[in-house]
Amino acid sequence: MTHHVIAYAERVSRWQPGTRERLQRAALELFADQGFSRTTVPEITARANLTTRTFFRYFADKREVLFAGEDQLPALLEQTIREAPAELKPLEAISHGFDEFATALFEGRRDWVRTRRAIVDADESLREREQRKFTLIAEAAERALIARGVDGLAAAVAAQLGIAAFRVAVLRWSADDDDLSLDQARAETLAAMRAVARE
Amino acid sequence: MTHHVIAYAERVSRWQPGTRERLQRAALELFADQGFSRTTVPEITARANLTTRTFFRYFADKREVLFAGEDQLPALLEQTIREAPAELKPLEAISHGFDEFATALFEGRRDWVRTRRAIVDADESLREREQRKFTLIAEAAERALIARGVDGLAAAVAAQLGIAAFRVAVLRWSADDDDLSLDQARAETLAAMRAVARE
Repeated sequence: MTHHVIAYAERVSRWQPGTRERLQRAALELFADQGFSRTTVPEITARANLTTRTFFRYFADKREVLFAGEDQLPALLEQTIREAPAELKPLEAISHGFDEFATALFEGRRDWVRTRRAIVDADESLREREQRKFTLIAEAAERALIARGVDGLAAAVAAQLGIAAFRVAVLRWSADDDDLSLDQARAETLAAMRAVARE
Repeated sequence: MTHHVIAYAERVSRWQPGTRERLQRAALELFADQGFSRTTVPEITARANLTTRTFFRYFADKREVLFAGEDQLPALLEQTIREAPAELKPLEAISHGFDEFATALFEGRRDWVRTRRAIVDADESLREREQRKFTLIAEAAERALIARGVDGLAAAVAAQLGIAAFRVAVLRWSADDDDLSLDQARAETLAAMRAVARE
């Protein structure tokens, strides 16, 4: 094998499926054990048996381990809501938008979600980052509704309702041991929200 | 006059009505002009023509100028919601809770609210602090509803709805030039929220 083929083979073998997940798991364990701020990237890669160079191929910094892929959420949600069936009402359109990625992001990851939440809640900069994400998501949902012809105030409140329902549902689902599916939690939360608003 | 009477007179004259407001106004102007992080307490007191010692009699640090008195909000809201007329439904009880201090906090302070918002939005640690405040307020509202016998899920969603309605209303009111009263903005926002949730 030529030198560059060997280099390629090494690179490919290091890029095995699951590398990202190994880094995320190692990071999450360390953040949970010793705190987010006290954990370094070299500690994460040592635990995952990978190099720091590999780490930085996947994540810009240790914080992004907890927010990987979430930068695309606002744009994805905005597009899905805009393209939702025309007959859907504002809150239905938002719920439809969340359907698209809720399963992909959360299904089978209850432990990850629960551990991640405890880590985020314990650190001011992470809480801010988490909140920022939801602010961007709410703004995206609001823009999408306005593009669907919903008036400004209704779009603003529908976006707030939709995000709040989603967050309460995820919280209930992640706090539950196993009986409640995320879809069920979402349906129940939305129904409770509609009931409260009717009274 | 004896020495201690002179000292007393000096202290009283320094504690003139409006000292807190002078410090707040000076701080707000500086934060808006040059940014929150670049403003120091001595700069604030120099502009207000007061001493730093006086500053620290009123505020623990420069950040607290923007959050003065707000530490008591959760407990105040919780008590007011708990003691609201028994016939009020969850969302009505929360709205009743906000009635108590909305006027006191906001009436005649549109410019302050608007400038303060721009300052908070521009700084990560302030955004986190602001969000933390609303999280504590939502938790207080939720606890109060549970104490009124509302079930857990309904209490959680009602608290989220109530806070969201309030925040959207304050945003609309503060963005408006003069025609919209805060009460009007709150009533319209709550009505829009109920309408969206009914669809």
